[in-house]
Amino acid sequence: MAIVTLTTDWGTKDHYLGSVKGKLLKHIPDVNIVDISHDITPFNINQAAYILKSCFRDFPDGTIHLLGVNSDASPDFPHVAIKAHNQYFIGADNGLFNLIFEEKPEKIIALEIIQDTEKYTFSTKDVFTKACQMIINGTPIEKLGFERSDLTKMMSFKPIVENDSDGHTNIIGKIIYIDNYENAISNISKTLFEEHAKNRNFRISFNSFKNAITKISDSYSDVAISEACALFDSNDLLEISVNQGNAGGLLGLKQDTKIRITFEPQ
Amino acid sequence: MAIVTLTTDWGTKDHYLGSVKGKLLKHIPDVNIVDISHDITPFNINQAAYILKSCFRDFPDGTIHLLGVNSDASPDFPHVAIKAHNQYFIGADNGLFNLIFEEKPEKIIALEIIQDTEKYTFSTKDVFTKACQMIINGTPIEKLGFERSDLTKMMSFKPIVENDSDGHTNIIGKIIYIDNYENAISNISKTLFEEHAKNRNFRISFNSFKNAITKISDSYSDVAISEACALFDSNDLLEISVNQGNAGGLLGLKQDTKIRITFEPQ
Amino acid sequence: MAIVTLTTDWGTKDHYLGSVKGKLLKHIPDVNIVDISHDITPFNINQAAYILKSCFRDFPDGTIHLLGVNSDASPDFPHVAIKAHNQYFIGADNGLFNLIFEEKPEKIIALEIIQDTEKYTFSTKDVFTKACQMIINGTPIEKLGFERSDLTKMMSFKPIVENDSDGHTNIIGKIIYIDNYENAISNISKTLFEEHAKNRNFRISFNSFKNAITKISDSYSDVAISEACALFDSNDLLEISVNQGNAGGLLGLKQDTKIRITFEPQ
Repeated sequence: MAIVTLTTDWGTKDHYLGSVKGKLLKHIPDVNIVDISHDITPFNINQAAYILKSCFRDFPDGTIHLLGVNSDASPDFPHVAIKAHNQYFIGADNGLFNLIFEEKPEKIIALEIIQDTEKYTFSTKDVFTKACQMIINGTPIEKLGFERSDLTKMMSFKPIVENDSDGHTNIIGKIIYIDNYENAISNISKTLFEEHAKNRNFRISFNSFKNAITKISDSYSDVAISEACALFDSNDLLEISVNQGNAGGLLGLKQDTKIRITFEPQ
Repeated sequence: MAIVTLTTDWGTKDHYLGSVKGKLLKHIPDVNIVDISHDITPFNINQAAYILKSCFRDFPDGTIHLLGVNSDASPDFPHVAIKAHNQYFIGADNGLFNLIFEEKPEKIIALEIIQDTEKYTFSTKDVFTKACQMIINGTPIEKLGFERSDLTKMMSFKPIVENDSDGHTNIIGKIIYIDNYENAISNISKTLFEEHAKNRNFRISFNSFKNAITKISDSYSDVAISEACALFDSNDLLEISVNQGNAGGLLGLKQDTKIRITFEPQ
Repeated sequence: MAIVTLTTDWGTKDHYLGSVKGKLLKHIPDVNIVDISHDITPFNINQAAYILKSCFRDFPDGTIHLLGVNSDASPDFPHVAIKAHNQYFIGADNGLFNLIFEEKPEKIIALEIIQDTEKYTFSTKDVFTKACQMIINGTPIEKLGFERSDLTKMMSFKPIVENDSDGHTNIIGKIIYIDNYENAISNISKTLFEEHAKNRNFRISFNSFKNAITKISDSYSDVAISEACALFDSNDLLEISVNQGNAGGLLGLKQDTKIRITFEPQ
């Protein structure tokens, strides 16, 4: 049974979801449609990329992911079908995909699909479901259009590493996502952390929060209820949390808040 | 695999959805349940009708649509099963269905279904799922009750057309729905527009918005980011939008705001 | 087709749902995943218990219910798989399950499952989906860990019954849930009501609401639009409602508001 996921900024009230699901079921009767998220902030491709990047690896090979965020095509940002990690991704190449993949995908095909309608406001329904159907019916992805040499690049802020003359090392990153519990997820990866940690003591600080965090926890309950902790989330990104509390509100953490890790001299 | 859709005002927090899905799966093991919307404003049959009308045609033949909005039965508003467009619709005939269909449906059956419980507050679970099961098991719709001569009529405001003595033509409609992006959808159809346009110049105006819109766009990106545009939506209704912006908030468009199109004399 | 339901406090924006659904589909290709609710107030096991208790009986035998609310394990609150009512329930035994079941479940197994990761913040994905897969593949539930003698008890406020010297009987309960329409559901069951009613006249009062309710309705439309009524909900709990109105807001009913039923002397 083919799996098609949907990640959109449509919300769940309007008819858009019904239209796309109806159309998929009409043309691919045994399709299994999975909602990833429809609550992306409108037009926010950073959020959409973070969410899909955080879960696509959990899906089986062959899964097709439709991206209904900022999906209008333009000469610079064509509709594309991408093959990567044995899965497929369909959307507009507006920078979103470059935020999802660390490496260049196996195939990037700019779609040349003839719509059944003359409407250009609902690409997910009029273009992406057709591409989806072709892939599921066995059409090689190359036949969906012409190969594109690379993805549109989107600048994303990478953590900075600074070494002080007195032997301190600082990693300066930022919060990239606040989840439903108001856990604050940063762009500092476990790999980067470990590369510089070398068993040194460290302090994680942000805002004017006085009690810097000085250890990495394994689970929220490693600290007392209502106490702040830091841990690596299921995608190995540094997360600042409060056990059974809302770190975002309690600690003043928001999208883009700077996070500093200071390692002591060895 | 039988498809059953749900359009309700239940929200997604409570147990109502779980109850109905569980009951459907218990009695129709291979049913494919599709959520259309559960975020209808409570008791708002106009919204429910607009949303289902906008997407039911995308579903395959044989789909059964359950309407869980204002679904208590009364002598005037009985529960009905309707056959139309090769699909089925089940709900209370309180005016909602008359807003969905342009023409009288093929069959309107007032349900005579014996409930398993003595509860009368959860018709979707206790009545509609049973009707659903009977239709899927092949019971002809006529056997579900007695034929009803017509749908309950619900007045809906239709656009007005006025011809001035100096040759201007005015179409006066209103906003009937604000979507998740705050696009504002009116009740002025492309058919009505074209009937009066006859290649004349025109101005679309509303509120005290000074810069009337003077052309119909094909897609949002036909205008600059943050600029207002008008286009016909995927259901061919005139929609007022702002490219990557929220037209509702930015232009003061709400449910029931009047929209005027003034065509110049020929 | 195996049915797995999800009841969580994750919301629907983040990637958590996508991760768990992807993982389930990867390991159990023909699983049918049903969302019960993801809008539980974070960490609120009372809400989660009320919602699942209100709908699990509607599901077919063999259904597996995953509880993603407060699901971190601890020595006192281990992860468990429970067999009850011919269905399965998986979560942390933190008191939640004791609120769902009236009687001790048939089997309570403390899970001993070896995770594939060293992450301890996402039990539903890393532990519960594995337990789920084992049950669906036919592993007897006893093989998932060691038997636990009983569930963790969670105090829940039970209604109090008082008999006055002049022959009045009072049942004093409280509101335990406000639903999407702002119907207010109490912890007073139909059984308790009938045990004390004995055909006596009664008054249902709360707050300083002057017009006490003096009868039990069968459906909302037994009273005029905007009028208050009391009825037994689909789970036979006393519910205070306003016909086509929001009882919570209109009558000042909230979680924990006291509800008093006073029966007249015989």
